Amino acid sequence: MRALIWDGARARVAEDAPAPAASAGSAVVRVSLAGICSTDLQILEGYMAFKGVLGHEFAGRVEDGPRALVGKRVVGEINFACRRCATCLAGRVRHCPTRLVLGILGADGAFAERVRLPVENLHPVPDEVPDEEAVFTEPAAAAIEASVQSAGFAGGRTAVVGAGKLGLLVAQVLAARGDQVRVVCRSAPARETTLALGLEAVSLRDAPRDNDLVVEATGDPQGLALALELVRPLGAVILKSTVAHHHQLDLAPLVINEVTLIGSRCGDFVPALDAIRTGLIRVRPLIEARYPLAEATRALEHAARPGSRKILLAA
Amino acid sequence: MRALIWDGARARVAEDAPAPAASAGSAVVRVSLAGICSTDLQILEGYMAFKGVLGHEFAGRVEDGPRALVGKRVVGEINFACRRCATCLAGRVRHCPTRLVLGILGADGAFAERVRLPVENLHPVPDEVPDEEAVFTEPAAAAIEASVQSAGFAGGRTAVVGAGKLGLLVAQVLAARGDQVRVVCRSAPARETTLALGLEAVSLRDAPRDNDLVVEATGDPQGLALALELVRPLGAVILKSTVAHHHQLDLAPLVINEVTLIGSRCGDFVPALDAIRTGLIRVRPLIEARYPLAEATRALEHAARPGSRKILLAA
Repeated sequence: MRALIWDGARARVAEDAPAPAASAGSAVVRVSLAGICSTDLQILEGYMAFKGVLGHEFAGRVEDGPRALVGKRVVGEINFACRRCATCLAGRVRHCPTRLVLGILGADGAFAERVRLPVENLHPVPDEVPDEEAVFTEPAAAAIEASVQSAGFAGGRTAVVGAGKLGLLVAQVLAARGDQVRVVCRSAPARETTLALGLEAVSLRDAPRDNDLVVEATGDPQGLALALELVRPLGAVILKSTVAHHHQLDLAPLVINEVTLIGSRCGDFVPALDAIRTGLIRVRPLIEARYPLAEATRALEHAARPGSRKILLAA
Repeated sequence: MRALIWDGARARVAEDAPAPAASAGSAVVRVSLAGICSTDLQILEGYMAFKGVLGHEFAGRVEDGPRALVGKRVVGEINFACRRCATCLAGRVRHCPTRLVLGILGADGAFAERVRLPVENLHPVPDEVPDEEAVFTEPAAAAIEASVQSAGFAGGRTAVVGAGKLGLLVAQVLAARGDQVRVVCRSAPARETTLALGLEAVSLRDAPRDNDLVVEATGDPQGLALALELVRPLGAVILKSTVAHHHQLDLAPLVINEVTLIGSRCGDFVPALDAIRTGLIRVRPLIEARYPLAEATRALEHAARPGSRKILLAA
């Protein structure tokens, strides 16, 4: 089958990648659309030392697996957990220590014609949600996780640093729960997208320095230092960016101002699909372009341009 | 008067330092005992760019000020707040943006015969608490703050990294609230002090990697990376160390494991004095040596030796 393969040095579209076969407990999904995430670009920089088929955001149709699922339009949670260990049984399934992660850790991803996932990871997509929107379920879930983790700050003054794909999803969720959200925009296009989503855009110069909550979603190791400048004492910073490079920063302000820094990764798919279905999260203004899978390397280049929004791959 | 003065390049004992005079709202305290904190040593490395009389841990007797206070044995909170601004009125007095901090920021400290503090900052010391114990009120308050900030993890598995003065105070507080506390010890003397306090000591090799809560109190920029290795996914790390040098570390584990990092500085004196009075916090095993103020530079050298416990200065 056709797939985008990263061998640790080069990303290329292969026409002869081995197609996955369904096994006990797993299903094969015919991918219709996949989304390029900043994490994919970080993998090309060495993040997670992953090799294989890239891609963890997708929507598709089950082609092989349990009869009840075959033919269903689905999205899929990216953490493949054992569901038996102490961590899983404590309800922390996304943190299973022996997990594989779709297109990130030990499991071939969704920039391919077909992808295999554990049956438990699949969620049927409501008819009202087209593939172009369903493909955002994974980042929308990650955005909702930021809200879950900062519940104590709901309704407060919130700044989102990084008006990228993920930042604008988080900003929508936090605005919906009643936060006074300001999105810090560094470019005119970022500002435009922010306004198109009904969010408030501010320049870095005009951003208030006394936010109760700051979301760092720049994808840049420098972003955290900036976030720490914008948060008030005893406030919180949600760190969303996973980067291949080391952070070098002065953490004294975190200690002196008794700031809480919250690492935030993946979230629950059920509320995410619901938020997309009801329009609580709007994703269409976040789509920049769509490429056929055959042109996936060109699509990656496009996704890497500063300020680009979501690039989709049609398999 | 006699005082230990740091001029930005050299610490020296002056005999002719100007004695402070009481003014409206402030009192002058005759210092009896002061304690050297790792923060003092960090100031000698450039932390906070402070210049003046060092020292923020002390016990003494009010010599001049409001009549009701004169003659009283006291300890003093180190943050001098305006008590009028939005931050103060929100109850975050220790974070007043225009605050001075005793011996750390804009206010001469307590390594002197006399020190001046705002009247509101002074707390009478119960008769049962001798000066040798009262001088620990400031770090004991900082230790209790760590417990307040991690209330959600009470009763869980806790590791304290850094069996120093502050680490062993925090460990006592967390053990008292029911945490299963293990103190990670790197040296035989640290192990001895830990055991003398009735706490469990472990080597780094034997420390469990699945702690719900980890307290980083090493005073070393490397300590945080170590703490992140010992905490379970969705757990928390309390960062106590303020260091003059930059942290250089990989924060990806914090994001991937969705760890919460909590900056922690100062705490409330009232429960701290009470914890010392009742023996909930034991401080005597933490005393290493006592020097006269005239030998303060020698005392600083002693305090800087790796593994040294609390060095006291008698004014």
